[in-house]
Amino acid sequence: MNKLRLSDSSSLQNSETVNKVWSDFERSVRSAHQKRCADTRIIRAADLDIDLSLQHNSQEMNDASVALLEAHHFNTMRQALFRGEHVNWTEDRPALHTALRQSPAPEVVSAQIAESLACMKAFVDQCNARNQFRNIVHLGIGGSDWGPRMVWESLRGHETRRKLRFAANIDAQAITTALDGLDPRDTLLVIASKSFTTIESITNAKYALQWMRNAGVEDPYAQTVALTANRKAAQAFGVPDAQIFEFWDWVGGRYSLWSSIGMSLALTLGWSTFLQLLAGARDMDTHFMDSPVQTNAPVQMALSAVANTSVLGYSSQVICPYDARLAGFVMWLQQLEMESLGKSVDENSRPIRLHISPAVWGMPGTDSQHTFFQWLHQDQTGAPVDFIVRRSADCQHPEHQRLLVANCLAQRATLWQGKPLEQVRQELAQAGRSEDDIEKLAPHLVHPGNRPSTLIVLPELSAHTLGSLLALYEHKVFVQSVLWGINPFDQWGVEFGKNMARRMTQGDQQALGDLDASTRYWMQSLLSDG
Amino acid sequence: MNKLRLSDSSSLQNSETVNKVWSDFERSVRSAHQKRCADTRIIRAADLDIDLSLQHNSQEMNDASVALLEAHHFNTMRQALFRGEHVNWTEDRPALHTALRQSPAPEVVSAQIAESLACMKAFVDQCNARNQFRNIVHLGIGGSDWGPRMVWESLRGHETRRKLRFAANIDAQAITTALDGLDPRDTLLVIASKSFTTIESITNAKYALQWMRNAGVEDPYAQTVALTANRKAAQAFGVPDAQIFEFWDWVGGRYSLWSSIGMSLALTLGWSTFLQLLAGARDMDTHFMDSPVQTNAPVQMALSAVANTSVLGYSSQVICPYDARLAGFVMWLQQLEMESLGKSVDENSRPIRLHISPAVWGMPGTDSQHTFFQWLHQDQTGAPVDFIVRRSADCQHPEHQRLLVANCLAQRATLWQGKPLEQVRQELAQAGRSEDDIEKLAPHLVHPGNRPSTLIVLPELSAHTLGSLLALYEHKVFVQSVLWGINPFDQWGVEFGKNMARRMTQGDQQALGDLDASTRYWMQSLLSDG
Repeated sequence: MNKLRLSDSSSLQNSETVNKVWSDFERSVRSAHQKRCADTRIIRAADLDIDLSLQHNSQEMNDASVALLEAHHFNTMRQALFRGEHVNWTEDRPALHTALRQSPAPEVVSAQIAESLACMKAFVDQCNARNQFRNIVHLGIGGSDWGPRMVWESLRGHETRRKLRFAANIDAQAITTALDGLDPRDTLLVIASKSFTTIESITNAKYALQWMRNAGVEDPYAQTVALTANRKAAQAFGVPDAQIFEFWDWVGGRYSLWSSIGMSLALTLGWSTFLQLLAGARDMDTHFMDSPVQTNAPVQMALSAVANTSVLGYSSQVICPYDARLAGFVMWLQQLEMESLGKSVDENSRPIRLHISPAVWGMPGTDSQHTFFQWLHQDQTGAPVDFIVRRSADCQHPEHQRLLVANCLAQRATLWQGKPLEQVRQELAQAGRSEDDIEKLAPHLVHPGNRPSTLIVLPELSAHTLGSLLALYEHKVFVQSVLWGINPFDQWGVEFGKNMARRMTQGDQQALGDLDASTRYWMQSLLSDG
Repeated sequence: MNKLRLSDSSSLQNSETVNKVWSDFERSVRSAHQKRCADTRIIRAADLDIDLSLQHNSQEMNDASVALLEAHHFNTMRQALFRGEHVNWTEDRPALHTALRQSPAPEVVSAQIAESLACMKAFVDQCNARNQFRNIVHLGIGGSDWGPRMVWESLRGHETRRKLRFAANIDAQAITTALDGLDPRDTLLVIASKSFTTIESITNAKYALQWMRNAGVEDPYAQTVALTANRKAAQAFGVPDAQIFEFWDWVGGRYSLWSSIGMSLALTLGWSTFLQLLAGARDMDTHFMDSPVQTNAPVQMALSAVANTSVLGYSSQVICPYDARLAGFVMWLQQLEMESLGKSVDENSRPIRLHISPAVWGMPGTDSQHTFFQWLHQDQTGAPVDFIVRRSADCQHPEHQRLLVANCLAQRATLWQGKPLEQVRQELAQAGRSEDDIEKLAPHLVHPGNRPSTLIVLPELSAHTLGSLLALYEHKVFVQSVLWGINPFDQWGVEFGKNMARRMTQGDQQALGDLDASTRYWMQSLLSDG
């Protein structure tokens, strides 16, 4: 294994330094938490404003953060990422998604990428020139699904050339709903699977091909495209060679939106929109590479996350875009963060002692306010929130936009401000409640406050700003992985259950022998007469 | 305040007992956790099978649980709930959602409910007889939205009389998307708001009325229905009196699906389907009232939740329905649990010392497997999972159904079973990896296992089984609230941010004076030229 990391001897020499900087960092975070300081701290990154004013902060914390980054060789690791060194060392390969948006990259992949983009563009141009395919059905799951799905949901309001539908789940509901009402003769199947063995995507693709055959399509494979890192498997499946668009093992599934996985978007939103998405991400790459750490948005967001998780003990990170179209962004981010950081073992293959990797979940506001904001305000701990809001006045609906923005700002402000017991008592007294009532009721109306959040302001929701937003979070997660000492690019935990499912459907008795009695009972009851 | 609780003196005398039973319970849970026992334990409740075999359990834990329930006067509290005593004591009122499904209830509300159901049915019959309204647009948010939305998404596959669309968010995207393509002359607006002051629902309703006027509808109010506990406000808004369907202050928003809030479902899925939903919930009420605690599904699920949260320290509860149609169920449950349990103060108005109220989030499988199951398997702690699966063979798609069920069972089994270091080493050796590689890689492939989960098996997805499922969780949450000593029926934390948003849009300078500098900056930048 040609693993990229600092040599063991250097990291052992370093361990005392690391312990020291961590304890300095912890002390500084606790102190900032106690002081509840809210100095304005807004970072401009690409076209985005990232406001960290309501994250705990202080000069002492800044100094400790710089030392922490240095102790973890942040500069070296950042360079290693962009240069294509084997940062994914458990799988012995680089993670070069940044190269896909044409940020500086090793020449050999630049050539591959340019060729792939040219092939994609040629296919899109050809479909447009021939006016082919009114409908695209994109069949992928996880990393091959969330990226395109989220971008489509965010930008579909613009004029689109074609309809796009998605089916991911193995539940037949997904594929039957996706195909419902479409004309099979005018539909292109896009099979997106890095390995081209993903059971969901292959099963749904077979179903869709049969649906085409049933409708009299003579050569359904002619209406099929594969987006994959396994050309041979796609060929064997029957996809014509010219319709296989490759990406490579150094593109992680959850970073694959920037690769040929974006094909369905290029076909529907247009080639130039796809390029704008890449350009937005590239602008954030540049910011991440070039900005000093104090004004580097991914770095500062990561430091807040580390402070909140590893020092203050928060177990969740909540995401609330105040834009209904960004519902899918929450899912995309959930995968990015939880697959990247949901690990227990560090770069030295030892258990991590810090508390890392919060659960990431959320929902667009204002829906979320009526769903779980009670918990954010009054649970024993709550969780930090990332608020995302767009600046554009959206002149057609000024009243709606004004209320949307006010709610976002108000929730963020009140989570921070809180409402102390004395204020509650005064309000109850003003409302004419009796002393006895106030005594019993007031504690239930207290809001502890001091609950941190980040505000991200987009000038508008466009392919460019969305590209920047996604890259912002990609790099934030990378910085967290550096500080926590884990490999964010592998996902060994995804295979175990999948393999067990395959063995169950194949009736592999050896594998099943060790299973608990309840599982064996349900296999008998639910699977045996399948 | 006419608060229902055990008298302070009795609870003070009781406090030693309570401490004792809690420490017995804690010890029993830790011991069961260590023993990793998985004896089969399946409870039949209504038509559902609830399998708790892979939750930590033992005879000792059973005994301690019984004592815990007794110390918290569970039997008395359960009776008080159904009898309409003031279990919502901070708001001095009963919580009688069970009466809405005609489980035994005080006679006075029975009469109200029967009358309301008769009015609802008459309106539905009239619309059907006149063949009125091809489209229903339901305007509510939170409790006035998730219930109907989730049931609609779950059951819309059946033949439906009318189209139903929802708009909840104040983001104009929600209402414009909901109205897009509908014929205003053939559309009924259903405004669902308990207070009839909810800013989102009222703003969206005004927008929709204007949309009707713009299309030449002369009397848009004639095509408007109100579902509310505030008849006067609905009248003042302009809704004809005969089209106002009331519910009452003793129906909490998150329990209001069973009230007139179900109107949109009755109009689309049919009156008998709505009654089946109620009947399914009633069957679960009966199970909850009559079953001994050892075989009482809501009680046992609550005990597992309390063990996982308050003893083992889990901070999340993950929900994975293996049915794509149940995506909305996760949101409904998120509100139910997090608004009900997201509190910090107990029935004596003192801070709760136990760790309570996990974050509740999730996603249908198999999508979730490709999103956050890495974290469930290999994060330092992960979280307990509720798996939900349907039994029905769904003969049209046997291959899909088989794979769906196998994946559900496999994930549950592997989370419990784990994969120890020695097994990983063997597998790597068999795969031909070098000793050096195995040494470094093996720890990254370990799955600790012993991660608990519940499996709920539905015979099919129908109005009846869905009703049972929802009531199961309602009662589970109630039992948790009893054991944690909190009022699950209030939500004081929802008001604070909402009020601040109102003050911001009204430019209330007094309220704004205390705000942090960043919030004031963004108000200036984002709201001042609105």
